[in-house]
Amino acid sequence: MIKMTGSSLPIKIDSADAAEKFIDNYDTFLFDCDGVLWLGSSLLPNVSETLSLLRAKGKNLYFVTNNSTKSRNAYAKKFESFGISVREDQIFTSSYAAALYVRDSLKLEPGKDKVWVAGEAGIIDELGLMGYETLGGTDPRLDEPFDSQNSPFLVNSLDPDVKCVVAGLDTRINYHRLAVSLQYLQRTDVSFVATNLDSTFPLKGMTLPGAGSIVQSLEKASGRTAVACGKPNQNMLKSIIAATNIDPSRTCMVGDRLDTDMKFGSEGRLGTFLVLTGIETENNILNPDTQHTKPQYYAGSLSLLYELTNVP
Amino acid sequence: MIKMTGSSLPIKIDSADAAEKFIDNYDTFLFDCDGVLWLGSSLLPNVSETLSLLRAKGKNLYFVTNNSTKSRNAYAKKFESFGISVREDQIFTSSYAAALYVRDSLKLEPGKDKVWVAGEAGIIDELGLMGYETLGGTDPRLDEPFDSQNSPFLVNSLDPDVKCVVAGLDTRINYHRLAVSLQYLQRTDVSFVATNLDSTFPLKGMTLPGAGSIVQSLEKASGRTAVACGKPNQNMLKSIIAATNIDPSRTCMVGDRLDTDMKFGSEGRLGTFLVLTGIETENNILNPDTQHTKPQYYAGSLSLLYELTNVP
Repeated sequence: MIKMTGSSLPIKIDSADAAEKFIDNYDTFLFDCDGVLWLGSSLLPNVSETLSLLRAKGKNLYFVTNNSTKSRNAYAKKFESFGISVREDQIFTSSYAAALYVRDSLKLEPGKDKVWVAGEAGIIDELGLMGYETLGGTDPRLDEPFDSQNSPFLVNSLDPDVKCVVAGLDTRINYHRLAVSLQYLQRTDVSFVATNLDSTFPLKGMTLPGAGSIVQSLEKASGRTAVACGKPNQNMLKSIIAATNIDPSRTCMVGDRLDTDMKFGSEGRLGTFLVLTGIETENNILNPDTQHTKPQYYAGSLSLLYELTNVP
Repeated sequence: MIKMTGSSLPIKIDSADAAEKFIDNYDTFLFDCDGVLWLGSSLLPNVSETLSLLRAKGKNLYFVTNNSTKSRNAYAKKFESFGISVREDQIFTSSYAAALYVRDSLKLEPGKDKVWVAGEAGIIDELGLMGYETLGGTDPRLDEPFDSQNSPFLVNSLDPDVKCVVAGLDTRINYHRLAVSLQYLQRTDVSFVATNLDSTFPLKGMTLPGAGSIVQSLEKASGRTAVACGKPNQNMLKSIIAATNIDPSRTCMVGDRLDTDMKFGSEGRLGTFLVLTGIETENNILNPDTQHTKPQYYAGSLSLLYELTNVP
């Protein structure tokens, strides 16, 4: 097995031989999803075939996403809608990681302590499964324009049982949600947790503001720094290892981002494989001035593992 | 005239003698507004009397605010509603400073180049007065929930004549506005200007997210840094000196924030006077660990200048 340092040039997988050698190096693959398997609601070509190939070779497959908007259960349904069978326990999301942090590190008491959510259903659902009552989030009253006099959430309506703010991607984020979140963050007994800090995410040819962009806004206003639970935070990897018993030295992280996926894999001493179907360009990963962790391997797409080796 | 360094302890104005000596030091006073003269829509007690006293002593009064939501004209009307007569040319706002920057530094061409606004009417009005067409801002279609497929502002609808994004406080900020602003900021021919970087502002006993909180979100998503035009940027002071011919050595900045007002005055070698009716506490300004610029003078309120010296 070839081990390379972060400063070496990444190996391009562009032949059947290279693809087979790469696959043989590992027993387990951790996949980022958006930008690797699909873009938004469009499955990328031959992804299903590639996953089947790896399964046929006896590989363990897990799915590790910083997308906090869906619960693991909703993610399993998304796979199902693409005709790919994935169990919920093969899926690790940043909202699940945040809920684990609330329970295991902050040790908030289910049924008593509450969580204010600046984010979407994935966070609410995962916290709910652990017994936590959440406030904020998708509550439609927060869609109303901000009105400091009449918001049902402000000042005298702050709930003293809220002991944590969990922030993530929220495509309904608005001033009302930011303003109420800030009121909770001004309380010293309220912890500040972020699902992840991805600055952007790709959607239909666009690059859109990510969870990190929303978290940064709250950090600036509150003067506080959030604990981020998703990739590249190694707590995410610890949770995966604890739940699955995988061997890190025989595991490869497959992703589309240097600053989350490749950093996560590299810091966890996993193999790293970058695909160019998401946010990164070949120029950027080969550029010696690129600041972020380089992958050990890269390819134009995940499906090349299938396409290169499946020549009749 | 007493000149103190930033590291000396601020002088508390708490007697008629101290107030009179302070007033005699200066010919011109630059006032921050919110937190100094008023809180939101409530004029602070005896502010009108204090301004009259200073005028009666022949002082020049100017009003320098980072609030970008109102134009200078709308600000003059706000003074009028409090029974205080202030001419538009005595008012300098961060939205006016941003418009000056667009015209005089970026040299955008009025009638041809356009500006995308992530902010409120003050920015739109000041740019409009200089002949610039603006997009975004208060357009009610941006109040609609974000929809990457159907937003009339996205992707193929980006206007190639937009050469600048101006961002400031916007209590209608939402994901739709952030997402479209980001699409423009991803273009290399589009400049990025912020009215100001105040992290928060005070309103009715609350501390709410300020322009800086919104700008930071866009900076994180775009990987770019905005040029900030309001206090403490010294371009704001240069504009004021160019327009008024005041003598900086006989001018005092009066404000409620260390990181904007006091920094602005100190870097401009003006006198500095902090009042405690806004965002700062006495503990904070006297704390030797406080990181920000200390004022030369401070008092519980601006009105003490009147109340201390007006004893029958």
